[in-house]
Amino acid sequence: MDSGALLDLLGNENRRRILRLLARKPCYVTEISEYLGVSPKAVIDHLRRLEEAGLVESRTDEKRRKYFHIARNLRLEVTVSRHGFGAKSAYPASRDLDLTRCHHLTIDGVADATGGADGDDAESGDATDPGDGDASETSDDPGDIASLADELAELEDLERELSLAQRWVQGRLADVRDDLAETLEADGHEGLYAEVVAAVADGEGSIEALTRRVDAPAEVVEHAVGDLLERDVLEPDGDDGWRVTDSA
Amino acid sequence: MDSGALLDLLGNENRRRILRLLARKPCYVTEISEYLGVSPKAVIDHLRRLEEAGLVESRTDEKRRKYFHIARNLRLEVTVSRHGFGAKSAYPASRDLDLTRCHHLTIDGVADATGGADGDDAESGDATDPGDGDASETSDDPGDIASLADELAELEDLERELSLAQRWVQGRLADVRDDLAETLEADGHEGLYAEVVAAVADGEGSIEALTRRVDAPAEVVEHAVGDLLERDVLEPDGDDGWRVTDSA
Repeated sequence: MDSGALLDLLGNENRRRILRLLARKPCYVTEISEYLGVSPKAVIDHLRRLEEAGLVESRTDEKRRKYFHIARNLRLEVTVSRHGFGAKSAYPASRDLDLTRCHHLTIDGVADATGGADGDDAESGDATDPGDGDASETSDDPGDIASLADELAELEDLERELSLAQRWVQGRLADVRDDLAETLEADGHEGLYAEVVAAVADGEGSIEALTRRVDAPAEVVEHAVGDLLERDVLEPDGDDGWRVTDSA
Repeated sequence: MDSGALLDLLGNENRRRILRLLARKPCYVTEISEYLGVSPKAVIDHLRRLEEAGLVESRTDEKRRKYFHIARNLRLEVTVSRHGFGAKSAYPASRDLDLTRCHHLTIDGVADATGGADGDDAESGDATDPGDGDASETSDDPGDIASLADELAELEDLERELSLAQRWVQGRLADVRDDLAETLEADGHEGLYAEVVAAVADGEGSIEALTRRVDAPAEVVEHAVGDLLERDVLEPDGDDGWRVTDSA
């Protein structure tokens, strides 16, 4: 789903309250209307928009009452900075996703995250909670409440740590972009130049790839690359790629 | 800043376009108005709301023209799932944040992330880009374009990996919450029961703490705890805390 459309949907207090309510339990229109203190007509309109976006679904029970519930899990990340405004939305990734392929990231002590897709998830019970180091000896029987609770607590911890790490990365990205832009001096276009240089350092080798990556018109990117080549910040690398000059 | 207020602000296509434009370069009202194809009056109104929220600031140049620019870096995460609707916003964390304190997360090959606050950031140049293993020998002179570009490319990689890991965690959280709720059977309140059990497993030891954590009225949480104690899912632990019964 387009993240702009998702922001439009979430940019309404009553729709957010409906989602919060439905996340607790499936509800029918009258319940939602009473809970929100909003007319059934307005609730139906919000539900229709949420349904069209695929966020909410309904089913009808034996008394022919129509219940609404959350249809899918969804995640949205928005970053606002001097260097860009970005919004991306995504569905949760499959549990078989192989996180061991990450270059910079290692995840420990959480079932499933360490082994990739080989299905061995007996790692719960790791000392997650400070001051409680003896919570081990759990089995991985799917019906075992104690080990499921441990796993849930661990995943919630990991979620918090990932958020913290991302906040750290945002701060570092802003600092490094500032440093790079300051070093490059380009009459108000330093930000773009910095993105171009970073993309080249990351292996992008054509104007098309750079244009996609930095989200600017091709002629602007072409001019920036020409200028950076002239200033010896970039140098040709092979047939038609470039690299960042080592002494730059 | 309150994430609801932030979602209200971002839930408008023209305000998002203004932020995207200002992230590229500072602009004055006429420029923004022409770029958006929207009246100066409407632009001024959007800018006022963005200014009030602290997202945008202005300064006046020598020709007394008022330029607007992005005031601060900000990050917003929204999660919609059958188990909850959550939105949190945060400013980027300080570069001195000690990520080595994370229990589940290890970050490698990115300057600053590994050493905590001791200021040794000479780790750029790690082989980030697949197929380019010889990008080392960079110095950490702040003005060194090549090493700044490497560091930026690495941070962007790490950002992508963290997003991927978070999507994986969201998927696993939903699965484990489903499993736990299914095992607990509680007449439509399984979701709440699962959260209570997970919070107890994570060390929460009072009704007040649980109430905050699961965001439900105290009497509802108290009833759930009573029921779970009766069913031997929880057992008393010390003076007034509980733990998840091992055999549960």
